[in-house]
Amino acid sequence: MRGAVIHAPGDVRFETLDDPKILKPTDAIIRTAVTCVCGSDLWPYRGAEPIGDPHPMGHEYVGLVEEVGSEVTGLRPGQFVVGSFATSDNTCPNCLNGFPSNCLHREFMSTCQAEYVRIPNAAGTLVALDEVPGEELWPNLLANSDVMGTGWWAADAAQVRPGSTAVVVGDGAVGLCAVIAAKEMGAERIIAMSRHEARQELAREFGATDIVTERGEEGVARVKELTGGIGADSVLECVGTAQAMQQALRSARPGGGVGFVGVPHEVAIDGQELFFSHVGLRGGPAPVRRYLPDLIERVLSGGIDPGKVFDLTLPLAEVAEGYRAMDERRAIKALLKP
Amino acid sequence: MRGAVIHAPGDVRFETLDDPKILKPTDAIIRTAVTCVCGSDLWPYRGAEPIGDPHPMGHEYVGLVEEVGSEVTGLRPGQFVVGSFATSDNTCPNCLNGFPSNCLHREFMSTCQAEYVRIPNAAGTLVALDEVPGEELWPNLLANSDVMGTGWWAADAAQVRPGSTAVVVGDGAVGLCAVIAAKEMGAERIIAMSRHEARQELAREFGATDIVTERGEEGVARVKELTGGIGADSVLECVGTAQAMQQALRSARPGGGVGFVGVPHEVAIDGQELFFSHVGLRGGPAPVRRYLPDLIERVLSGGIDPGKVFDLTLPLAEVAEGYRAMDERRAIKALLKP
Repeated sequence: MRGAVIHAPGDVRFETLDDPKILKPTDAIIRTAVTCVCGSDLWPYRGAEPIGDPHPMGHEYVGLVEEVGSEVTGLRPGQFVVGSFATSDNTCPNCLNGFPSNCLHREFMSTCQAEYVRIPNAAGTLVALDEVPGEELWPNLLANSDVMGTGWWAADAAQVRPGSTAVVVGDGAVGLCAVIAAKEMGAERIIAMSRHEARQELAREFGATDIVTERGEEGVARVKELTGGIGADSVLECVGTAQAMQQALRSARPGGGVGFVGVPHEVAIDGQELFFSHVGLRGGPAPVRRYLPDLIERVLSGGIDPGKVFDLTLPLAEVAEGYRAMDERRAIKALLKP
Repeated sequence: MRGAVIHAPGDVRFETLDDPKILKPTDAIIRTAVTCVCGSDLWPYRGAEPIGDPHPMGHEYVGLVEEVGSEVTGLRPGQFVVGSFATSDNTCPNCLNGFPSNCLHREFMSTCQAEYVRIPNAAGTLVALDEVPGEELWPNLLANSDVMGTGWWAADAAQVRPGSTAVVVGDGAVGLCAVIAAKEMGAERIIAMSRHEARQELAREFGATDIVTERGEEGVARVKELTGGIGADSVLECVGTAQAMQQALRSARPGGGVGFVGVPHEVAIDGQELFFSHVGLRGGPAPVRRYLPDLIERVLSGGIDPGKVFDLTLPLAEVAEGYRAMDERRAIKALLKP
């Protein structure tokens, strides 16, 4: 089969690879329906994370079951499945506590920009649809496997409530999906922080009521102006930098909540500042598997349209152009078709 | 009148002071029924916080209303009142959101180890009892004004739920009251971390089911052993040091909650460690005023007995000995009688 391999910063190639095989009786093999490039794939692509030896890339996927291991229950070849970027057995204590992305048997997916993919912990990880959905729904379902699930988690962790005010820091695909989540959870006012016109437009389409273009302390001041001087009930931090975290914490009202879902890079939180703010802080890799049945239902019923974050569609063979377009911010998110 | 004045580390004196007066129409003056020394009073006493000019001390109090300003509603001379260490108008947005200890008109009390005390924001701060309670209840009610309210907040912020497992880090008066709170909120297993025999005993009396004497990484390992290898649902951090915070965060299970109520001294939280732990973190000065009606009711009905943390009772004139006894850990908490 063929798939993407990263060799060095800026150097992603489409190459012939060994077909994946069942390695454990709990594995499944899927044929990729669609996959995509994630904002977090840009960390190594930009040289901000070590690459080491050339290796495959990608952790977002929907596909058709090709083969299942001898211990995989509930799945059969031909089914259309959606899974999380983090695999989970769905039976360990952390899974039962609602944190499948902290499963004791978790493996992070990392080979999904390819024609076929091996899925560990298949029975606990994959959610099968009753029938193969129309292709027009694939982008929405693909978004659920990471960015929509992560945006949902940001809103959940920030404790968005009906009638509340939410701020979204970050206008990437996750931030935009976080706007959808805040809207679905009933936030009355949704302030998206963005200085990029196409993204502002999509944020508005997804439910943002206000756009703030300022950043840092100016951004905080603008949010306070919009929230009676005290700050927002919930802030959804979808970036992962120290500046974004500080902006998020300072934009929340006393006693508000911050959900942080961008992997933190060199972020330290001052204990005394957090203390006197009364802000609640929770983050981590999104427990996507917990949300999947609900998010799939919302997509199938037409309630949400997160696939709109894909503003570039390419053949999988042109994966390198997908990375380039996102790196240069010409695209929000690139969909790849095998 | 007379009251305590701190002059330098280790130097607290009982001196003649000006009688407090109504300074704003929203003030009240109370005659102190009983007051006490707080663990946080030891920071300046030990030279760990600057003292500056000699000044009065104390922020815990119950008393009898002596005089009220012209704008104070709902209070009259002779009433027995309990208030928080942080005053609040109970009408500002932060108060209405449940965070009176972040009231826009908040003043921290600081002159309560005295015969009379001026209470700013009196109408919003003080809760009057229907009648003057028997003296045997005064220690319990006094505890509500800070340590019991703060222990309650630790359990609330750590999201203690019925049937859950809670760990309490810190065996001071707040930690011991946090055990009471966890028990009242229905925690099934309560692990108190303490290496001090008298405090272990009181913790058990308050509802602790297990005692862990180890600290740091050894303490974390012991908690994991007691919790099926994954950690506790909730951890109540009642110290405020970097070591205690780290111990608390690492003792919580993935997706668990940490409530931190000790004022953090040189505490920085690593964003990436917090992220991958999925732990929710919330702290701050306790919103005692929000809890007071409920806590007073629990005391009057005999449901809780937080006054047991006072293991030393002294005349107010001997306040200096109260500080010494607590500094030398001869007493958990010193009650002072004017």
